[in-house]
Amino acid sequence: MYTGRMARALDLRVVAFGGGTGLPVLLRGLRDRVGDLSAVVTVADDGGSSGRLRHELGVAPPGDVRNCLVALAGRKKLAEVFDYRFDAGELSNHTVGNIIIAALADMDGGFCEGVERASRFLRIKGRVFPAATESLTLLVSYTDGTCARGESAAVVAGKKISAVAVEPAGAPAPERAVEAVRRADVVVLSPGSLFTSTIPALLGDGMREALAEFEGPVVYVANVMTQPGETDGFALSDHVRALMDHAGPCLTDVLVHSGGFSREVVERYGEEGAVPVEVDREVLESLGVAVRGASLVSEGDDGRRGLRHDAARLAEEVCRVGLVRL
Amino acid sequence: MYTGRMARALDLRVVAFGGGTGLPVLLRGLRDRVGDLSAVVTVADDGGSSGRLRHELGVAPPGDVRNCLVALAGRKKLAEVFDYRFDAGELSNHTVGNIIIAALADMDGGFCEGVERASRFLRIKGRVFPAATESLTLLVSYTDGTCARGESAAVVAGKKISAVAVEPAGAPAPERAVEAVRRADVVVLSPGSLFTSTIPALLGDGMREALAEFEGPVVYVANVMTQPGETDGFALSDHVRALMDHAGPCLTDVLVHSGGFSREVVERYGEEGAVPVEVDREVLESLGVAVRGASLVSEGDDGRRGLRHDAARLAEEVCRVGLVRL
Repeated sequence: MYTGRMARALDLRVVAFGGGTGLPVLLRGLRDRVGDLSAVVTVADDGGSSGRLRHELGVAPPGDVRNCLVALAGRKKLAEVFDYRFDAGELSNHTVGNIIIAALADMDGGFCEGVERASRFLRIKGRVFPAATESLTLLVSYTDGTCARGESAAVVAGKKISAVAVEPAGAPAPERAVEAVRRADVVVLSPGSLFTSTIPALLGDGMREALAEFEGPVVYVANVMTQPGETDGFALSDHVRALMDHAGPCLTDVLVHSGGFSREVVERYGEEGAVPVEVDREVLESLGVAVRGASLVSEGDDGRRGLRHDAARLAEEVCRVGLVRL
Repeated sequence: MYTGRMARALDLRVVAFGGGTGLPVLLRGLRDRVGDLSAVVTVADDGGSSGRLRHELGVAPPGDVRNCLVALAGRKKLAEVFDYRFDAGELSNHTVGNIIIAALADMDGGFCEGVERASRFLRIKGRVFPAATESLTLLVSYTDGTCARGESAAVVAGKKISAVAVEPAGAPAPERAVEAVRRADVVVLSPGSLFTSTIPALLGDGMREALAEFEGPVVYVANVMTQPGETDGFALSDHVRALMDHAGPCLTDVLVHSGGFSREVVERYGEEGAVPVEVDREVLESLGVAVRGASLVSEGDDGRRGLRHDAARLAEEVCRVGLVRL
């Protein structure tokens, strides 16, 4: 049975949206399990190394893209160089990969072109697309009616984000990313920062329409814990509503961790203001979203590194949804 | 005859010393003409992008090495990325290659190891060695008895350099570079800045001894013009004496440009204080050095780009010396 299912999974065409560390985990799991894999990656970051390159060189922020390229790289040793981060001097906090992508973007006439060339250098399995053909700036609205500009300014203690938008409005998603969605069997939204990572990946112009027309399953891999400043007090249905508010009512499935976790982990997250996301099944089902539980996360070896999504388990469950719905 | 000579040239084992722009020209000419090619490259630079990386990250200055790697690269597109220079922001004036080499040096536990890994990435034809296993600092003595420290401080208007040394004294040449000299058929000293490029490439500890034991020809490709602040008033024999003072009496041959050049070129160089290097044959012969003339340089298309050594012609003449002496 299992072998048969895997054999069919190898025919699946998957598109995954997101950024941060959540999307690369998903990509690592999917890369050798599915037949065709595309990543659509947020370009709204404006902090850290990415922010500096963005502001000084006018290129799109490369950090999120770099992590995805590395996750899919066939040339592992070159990928290791891409991931190298300087820790001193003026290059401090820059990674080599960010610098290379910035150079390629300038040499090749655009960020998409630079990412494509970096993809070839790294011999990646699959494709990586920026969410938009130009840098996006996040516009954040809070529940108290105020707003802020820029991803790194988005998280403000004591404020709740109600919505995000991007500027320039109407910056198109790359045509090939839209095309990948049209040809896909499954779309996955990665876990991670909801408003500053997963949602911005969906905001390239044309993507909402492509998702509306998409007839296969759209699976959200749910966050396990709330994120202070982004999703305080959010039940899972609040996450799903936020996704649907921004990307349209395309979600069909949510993957949740059903394996539980230790009291120590809950306490440690609690110290930072994060609590387990409540899985409010009835509300979710009323939204028309199927809830699928599986053991998806593991705790760090020494109990200190927190929870991590398990790449292989995530990918298996995504494939399972894809195959059930085929 | 010609075909026969070229066929034999393909068996020659050549080691070339230097840095700057002179050594890469020589390497470009030799790479497809000889059987085995090693470059030994100065690591005494302390200005520009190299100097910044050196001071901030504690790696050897990568610029001269990068130019040689690019000259020998099999992967031309990656070499193009190595050569990309940023022109804005905090990365301004850094090349991507310098940054990659600095990262590799740190990742791989040393500059030699980093250069070796960069060589593999670029699939270079031949080998590139730093002149010493650690960064060298140039100690410059002037004819007026004063001295200065650091390559970028070496050139002082109105002062004549009498000698250079390096610090730390006794920093060894890489064992594999010494080995390459032992196995070579011909050694070439590249044209370029005499005291700040060609000579420092020879100062790794152990190299003087290797050259003293070397029985094949050691060919200096002579500078065509004097260099203000470095070799003002130097006849060719003064260049040769300086080389012998620092590397031992190993020189056997000097290649000089015998093709002449236009009055416009002489005038333009004259405006910057440079004059054609006098080829004082009798003095050179009294030093035991054979003078070989050939047309080695060409003038820029529009007469404004100055003189350039012709890579192919240089390489042919170097091979000729090697074959005559075999």
